Amino acid sequence: MTDAQGTREPDSAGPPGPAASLPGLDEEQQRVLRRVGREWGRSSAPPEAWRRALPVDPDLGRFPLPAEVRPGRFGRLVTVSVVGPPPDTASDTAAEAGEVREGRFATGERPSGPVRRAGARTRRLLLGEALKSSAVASERMRKLVALPVLSADALSSVAYGPEAMLAVLVLAGTAGLAHALPVAGAIAFLMLAVGLSYRQTIRAYPHGGGSYIVAGANLGPSAGLIAAAGLMTDYVLTVAVSIASGVAAITSAVPSLTAATVPLGVGVIVLLLAGNLRGIRQAGALFAAPTYLFIGAVFALVVAGLVTAAGHDFEPRPTPPLPVTETAGLLLVMRAFSSGATAMTGIEAISNAVPAFKPVEWRNARTTLTWMVGLLIAMFAGIVALIQLTGVVPDARETVLSQLAHLGFGSGAMYVFVQAATAAVLLLAANTAYNDFPRVLSLLARDDYAPRVFMRLGDRLAYSNGVLLLSVAAALVFVAFDGRTGALIPLYAVGVFLAFTLSQTGMVVHWWRRRDRHWRKSMLFNAVGALLSALVFLTAGITKFTEGAWVAIVAVGVFLYVTTRIRRHYASARAALRLHAQALELPARAAAAPPPHAGPAPAPAPALGQAVAGGAVGRRAAQGGGAPGTGEDEELPAEVRNLSVVALATLDLASMRTLAYAASLQQPVLVLHISLSDHEGRRFRDYWTLWGDHLPMEVIVSPYRAVVAPLVHYLEALHHRHPELTLTVILPEIVTRRRRHQLLHSRTASRLRRSLRPLPKIVITTVPFHLP
Amino acid sequence: MTDAQGTREPDSAGPPGPAASLPGLDEEQQRVLRRVGREWGRSSAPPEAWRRALPVDPDLGRFPLPAEVRPGRFGRLVTVSVVGPPPDTASDTAAEAGEVREGRFATGERPSGPVRRAGARTRRLLLGEALKSSAVASERMRKLVALPVLSADALSSVAYGPEAMLAVLVLAGTAGLAHALPVAGAIAFLMLAVGLSYRQTIRAYPHGGGSYIVAGANLGPSAGLIAAAGLMTDYVLTVAVSIASGVAAITSAVPSLTAATVPLGVGVIVLLLAGNLRGIRQAGALFAAPTYLFIGAVFALVVAGLVTAAGHDFEPRPTPPLPVTETAGLLLVMRAFSSGATAMTGIEAISNAVPAFKPVEWRNARTTLTWMVGLLIAMFAGIVALIQLTGVVPDARETVLSQLAHLGFGSGAMYVFVQAATAAVLLLAANTAYNDFPRVLSLLARDDYAPRVFMRLGDRLAYSNGVLLLSVAAALVFVAFDGRTGALIPLYAVGVFLAFTLSQTGMVVHWWRRRDRHWRKSMLFNAVGALLSALVFLTAGITKFTEGAWVAIVAVGVFLYVTTRIRRHYASARAALRLHAQALELPARAAAAPPPHAGPAPAPAPALGQAVAGGAVGRRAAQGGGAPGTGEDEELPAEVRNLSVVALATLDLASMRTLAYAASLQQPVLVLHISLSDHEGRRFRDYWTLWGDHLPMEVIVSPYRAVVAPLVHYLEALHHRHPELTLTVILPEIVTRRRRHQLLHSRTASRLRRSLRPLPKIVITTVPFHLP
Repeated sequence: MTDAQGTREPDSAGPPGPAASLPGLDEEQQRVLRRVGREWGRSSAPPEAWRRALPVDPDLGRFPLPAEVRPGRFGRLVTVSVVGPPPDTASDTAAEAGEVREGRFATGERPSGPVRRAGARTRRLLLGEALKSSAVASERMRKLVALPVLSADALSSVAYGPEAMLAVLVLAGTAGLAHALPVAGAIAFLMLAVGLSYRQTIRAYPHGGGSYIVAGANLGPSAGLIAAAGLMTDYVLTVAVSIASGVAAITSAVPSLTAATVPLGVGVIVLLLAGNLRGIRQAGALFAAPTYLFIGAVFALVVAGLVTAAGHDFEPRPTPPLPVTETAGLLLVMRAFSSGATAMTGIEAISNAVPAFKPVEWRNARTTLTWMVGLLIAMFAGIVALIQLTGVVPDARETVLSQLAHLGFGSGAMYVFVQAATAAVLLLAANTAYNDFPRVLSLLARDDYAPRVFMRLGDRLAYSNGVLLLSVAAALVFVAFDGRTGALIPLYAVGVFLAFTLSQTGMVVHWWRRRDRHWRKSMLFNAVGALLSALVFLTAGITKFTEGAWVAIVAVGVFLYVTTRIRRHYASARAALRLHAQALELPARAAAAPPPHAGPAPAPAPALGQAVAGGAVGRRAAQGGGAPGTGEDEELPAEVRNLSVVALATLDLASMRTLAYAASLQQPVLVLHISLSDHEGRRFRDYWTLWGDHLPMEVIVSPYRAVVAPLVHYLEALHHRHPELTLTVILPEIVTRRRRHQLLHSRTASRLRRSLRPLPKIVITTVPFHLP
Repeated sequence: MTDAQGTREPDSAGPPGPAASLPGLDEEQQRVLRRVGREWGRSSAPPEAWRRALPVDPDLGRFPLPAEVRPGRFGRLVTVSVVGPPPDTASDTAAEAGEVREGRFATGERPSGPVRRAGARTRRLLLGEALKSSAVASERMRKLVALPVLSADALSSVAYGPEAMLAVLVLAGTAGLAHALPVAGAIAFLMLAVGLSYRQTIRAYPHGGGSYIVAGANLGPSAGLIAAAGLMTDYVLTVAVSIASGVAAITSAVPSLTAATVPLGVGVIVLLLAGNLRGIRQAGALFAAPTYLFIGAVFALVVAGLVTAAGHDFEPRPTPPLPVTETAGLLLVMRAFSSGATAMTGIEAISNAVPAFKPVEWRNARTTLTWMVGLLIAMFAGIVALIQLTGVVPDARETVLSQLAHLGFGSGAMYVFVQAATAAVLLLAANTAYNDFPRVLSLLARDDYAPRVFMRLGDRLAYSNGVLLLSVAAALVFVAFDGRTGALIPLYAVGVFLAFTLSQTGMVVHWWRRRDRHWRKSMLFNAVGALLSALVFLTAGITKFTEGAWVAIVAVGVFLYVTTRIRRHYASARAALRLHAQALELPARAAAAPPPHAGPAPAPAPALGQAVAGGAVGRRAAQGGGAPGTGEDEELPAEVRNLSVVALATLDLASMRTLAYAASLQQPVLVLHISLSDHEGRRFRDYWTLWGDHLPMEVIVSPYRAVVAPLVHYLEALHHRHPELTLTVILPEIVTRRRRHQLLHSRTASRLRRSLRPLPKIVITTVPFHLP
C-alpha cells in the first residue's frame, strides 16, 4: 500500500498537480494508523453498528437531486465520481465495491443574492467557464512556434538593454560613449557564453531545468532557495521593466500620452492579470506573431540604417554636445556593462520548458536555443552599431529605438510598425513572467517554502494566487518607480545574474559528479558561464548598490528570511500532526481508562451514567501523543471525557433549541448564564426553576458588564481544574437572512469563538437559529 | 413571578440600565416555558441524573484559582457573585440556597501579547480603570451649578446667533441691516415664548421630558421618532457648529491659525471623544466656570460698549459701504430670522435634566430655566444693540464678537479674556451634545429603533458606541463644511425646531388630556411655543432649503427610514424567538415521536441504536414553533435526531482526534472526504481500510478542485432528503500560536462555516488542534 505519488520527490521538475497538497502517509504513519485502528476496534462499537445507525444513505449520487438543490444557471452540475468501498470490506451493499460510481452532483459554487450572482456572471465573462483537472494541457510546440513564444523575453530585452548601457556611458560625455563598442562586445561574448552554458543544462535536464531545480539538486536546498529568491525578484522586475519599456515605446510615438505612463502601465498589468487568471496558453500564432514582427522590425531598421550609413561611407555622425558629470573610469564602464547585460534576461526560458518541445525534446530545445542566442547577438550588435553610426544618445522623452526608427523611416507607417512591434513583444515578455512566477512559487509551496495556497489550481487551472501576487508586486514596483525603465534597470540585473550564477555553478557540480560523455567540455562551458554571470552579479551589486541594487538585495534577503520561517513552521506543524511513534503507546493508555461499554447502562440515562462511570473525575497524566502541552491527545472515543457547556443569555426559542440539542448529545451538560446584575441573575434563576431546573445551571454576575471575558475565564479555570475534560461550548447563534441585519444582533458567539480559539481542548459548537 | 422590570415601560424617562438589554418574560412566555419544561421532564432524564453526571463542581468561585488562571496586571480579579439555587429547588447541596455567594474570579479582559498589552495600558491611561455598574452616579445639582452646566449650550449660542442673522441681512446692504432690530425683537419674543413653554414641560415631566419622550407619549411613537430624528441631527450639528464657532473665536484672536481650522476642530472632537469615553461627569466647578466667565465677558463687553456709545450720545456709527446682492424682501428677513433663531438652540436642556436637580426638583429646574432665559434674552439683546451702535458687519476672517471686543477693549488682556471665555463655553456646549446624543440613542435602542449595541454601557459607564458614532458623524460634517460656522447654520435650525414643535405640540395634547390645575394657561403657553417653533421650522426649511437645509431634511428622512426598518427587523426577530403559544402544541408532537428511553438499549452502542430506533428515517411534518420554514422546531432533546458529519482532508493527529470526538458523542457518524482526483480518493479509501473502516465513510471526487462547494451541496442535499435530521458538521481546525502563521494553513473550516451558516439545522462544531 505504499504509494509512489504520495511520497514527495524533491527533485521532480513538474509543477505540483491538483492532488499534491494532500501527501500520502509513509510506512511508519501507516503502521501507526493500523495500530490506532486496532485499539479503536477494541473499545468502540463495531463498524456494522455504526453503519446500521446511519439514518441516511450517504451515496446521494445515485439518486436524482430534489429540485430545490439543483444549482441555478451559475452553479455547475457535473457528473461526479463517488469512490465505492474497496472489495475487501464486508459491506452489506457492496455490489459495486471498489469501483468508481458516477452521479450527478453540484460541485461548483452556487452564488446567492443579486450582487454575488452579478459577480459570478462578470467572473465567468472575464475568466471563462471552469476547467476540469483532467483538462491540463500537454500540447507540444514545434520549433518555429517555440522560438517566438519562449524567446520573447530575451529578444525583447534588446529594446532596453543597449539604451541602458548608453545611459550610463553618456554620463562621461563623448569620452564615455567611446567605450560603447568594447562594452557591447563584452556583453555579446557573455551572451554567447551563457547561451552555450544553457545548452548543457538542456541536455542534462530534459524534464526542465529551472535555476531552482538545478541549483537545489546540485548545490543543496539553500542554494536552490537563493536561486529562487533571485528568480522571483527577477520575474517581478521583468514585468515592471518590460511594461515600462513597452509603454515608453508607445509614448515615444504618441508623446501626449507621456503623462499617463503610470495608469497605462497599471492598466496593462490588470489586463495581464485577467488574461492569466483566465489561463492564457503560451501557444498559437497569436503569441508567435509579435516576436517575428519585432525581429523583422529590428532587422529592417538595421538594414535601412546601414544603407543610409553606406551613403556617407559609414562615417559616424557627431553626437550632440553632452554635459559631463562623471569621468570615464573603470567603475563607469563596469556599471555600463552590468546595465547592458539586462539585454540577455530571459535567456534561460528555453531550458525551463524543454518538455514542451516535440520529441526529441532536448535536441529541438537546443536547436531553438542556438537560434535564439544567434538572433539575440545579431539584434544586439546591430542596434549598437546603428547607435554608433547615427550618434543617437538616450533621451528621457523618446527611446533610443524610437529615435533610430525616426532616423531610418521618418514618421510614416514603417515607424509606427517598429514601435507597435516593440510594444507588443515587450508586453508578451511580461506575460512570460506570468507563466513562470506562479509555477516557481507552486514549486516553493510544494517544498514548504511558501504558503500552500500558491499550490492551488484555480477554476481555470491557473495558479491564481501566484498570478495575483505577481500582479500586485509588479504594480507596486511600477508605481513606486513612476514607470521609468532607467530607474528600474539597476534593480534588474542583480536577481537575474544571481540565479544564472547558481544555476550554472550547479551544472558544474552536476558534470563533476556524473562524468558521462563530453562531461569535460560541458563543465568547461558551464564554468565559464558561471564565472561570467558571477562577475556581472558582483559588478551590478557593487557598482549600482546605491542606485537601486540595494532594493533587489533587500528583496532577496527578505524572501530568504520569510521562506525559511515558513518552512520551519510547516516542519513543526507536520511533526505535531504526524501519526507518530509515540501514538503507539496507545495500548497502555487505553488500559488505564476503564472500558466504557463494560456493563449495561442504567435505564433512564444510559449515556449520561456511563459518561460519569467511565470518566471518574481525576486527572489523567498526559503521556505523549497529540499536541505537546495542550493535552489534546485523545485518539480513541473511549478516551474522550465530554462536558457540554451551554452559554445562554435569555430563554427564548433559540435557547430552548440549543438546550435540546445539548441534551440530545447525551453527555453531561452545564448551563452558564452571565448576568449583568444580581437582580437579573435571580430573575434568570426564577425562570429556570419555572422551566423545571432540568439541567445544572450556574449564574455568574459580571459587575463590569463584560460578557465574553468572564465566560472565557470560567472555562479557563474549568480546564485547569479538570484538564481531562473536553469542553464543548455550545452557543445559540441567531442568523439573519440579510447580512446587514446581522449587525443588529449580538456578536457574542463570534467574539467568544475568537477568544476561546487559543484555549486547548475547547470544542466550539454553534447552533444556528434562522430568522424568517 | 411577574417582574416589573421585565416588561418595558415605553414612557419611562431614564436611560436603560445595564440589564435592560435582557428583558424579562411576560405571562404568556412564562406559561409556555412551564409547559415546555413539563414535557421535557416527561421525556428526558431527571434533573438529579444530569446533576450527578456533572464531572465538575461548577461553583468555581469558592475555590482559589490555580496560579496560571489568575489574570495579570491588566486583568481584573474581582469578587463576583454567584447566584445560588432558589430555596424551593430540591437540591442536594443547597446549603446556601437562594443566597448570593461570593468568590474571587476574573471578569475583565486579560490582554495577551505585547501589542495588546500596550493597547490596554494606553487605554487605561486615557480612559481610567473600569467602573462597576453600581457606580452609576446620582448626584444632585444646586441651582448655581445647574445653571452654568445646563445652559452652556443655550447661552453659548449668542456667540454665533446674532452674527448668523446679520450675515443674511447684510446681503441687502444697509437697507437689510435696518431690519436687524425688528428681527432681533422677534427672536427675543420667540425665546420668551419657548422658555415659558418649557416651564410647563418641567412641571408635567418631573422625571425629565426630552422631546422624544414628550412627543412619543402624547402624539404617538411616530411623532416621537420624528422628534428624535430632529434631535439627533441637532446634536451632531451642535457639536459641529459649536466647535466651528469656538475655533473661529480662537482664529479671530490668532489669525495665523486660520489655515489650521479643520485639524484644530477635528483635534477638539478627538479630545471630546476621549473625555466622554472616560465618562466626564457634567458636574463640578470646572464645568461651571466657562459659562460664568462667558456671561461676565458678554456683560462687560456690552457695558463697555454702552459707555463708549454714551460718549457720542448713542449715535450709531456708520457701517462701511456694503455690496448689495439681494433686495431686503420678506424672504430675506425670514431667512435672517431663522438664522438668528439658532441663538436659542439648547434651550430645552434643563427640561431634559429635571431629575438632576436637588429637591423639589421641578421647582428648582423652573427657577433655573427662568434665569437662563432671562440671561439669554439679555445677552442676545445686548449684543445686537452693540452691533447696531458700533456698525460692525460680519467678516469671514473675524467673528462679530471678536470685532466688538476689539472695539471695546483693544487687543489687551480683556480682549483675550473675552475670546478665551467664548471658546471655552462653546467647547462646553459641544460637550452637552455628548451627554445627550448617546442617551437618546440608548432610549431609541431600548425601543428597538437603533442597534442594541448603543444600549451597552462601557467600562466607564458611558454609552461608548453612541459617543463614538457622534464623534464620527460630527467630524464628517465638520470636515465636509471646512469648519465654517456660516455654512453650517442653514442646516442647524431645521432639526432643532422640528423637535421643539413636536415636543410642544405634545404638551398641548398633554394638557388637553389631563386638564389638571392651570391647564388652560399651560396649554396656551405651549400652544404659542409650538406655533412659533413650527413657524421657524417651516421658514428655515423653505427659505434655506437650497443653502443646506435640504441636507438636514434628508438626514432626518434617512434617520426615519433606517430606524423604522431596524424596528421592523427586531419585531420580526422577537416574534420568531418568542416562546409563543404554538409551542404549546408540544404534547401532540412529543406523543408522535416515540419515547426514546422506553426499553433497555442494545448493549454495544446504546446511544447509537437508540438514535436509529427513535429516529425512524421519515419526514416529520414541521408543525408550528421554531423559525418558520426552516424546520428548526425542536425544543425537547427527544425530538432531536442527530447525524454527525465529519469532513476530513487527511489522516493526521488532528483528524484522529476529531474522529474520536465525533464517535465519543455516541450519535450516528458519517465521514466525508473531498478528493481532488480519483486516484487520491482511492488512496484515502485504502488508508481508511488500513485504519479499520470503523466509521461509515464517503469519498466525493471534485473535478473542479473546489472543496467547500461540493461539501455544502452534499449537506444541502442531505438536509433536503432528511429534513428531520440535525446535521452536526464536525471539522478539525489547526490553531497556530501566532496569528500570522494561521495564514499558512487552510482556511477551509472558516470558509465552510460561512457557507453553511445560511443552511437550516446544520450545527457547526470545530475541534481545535493547537500547534506547539
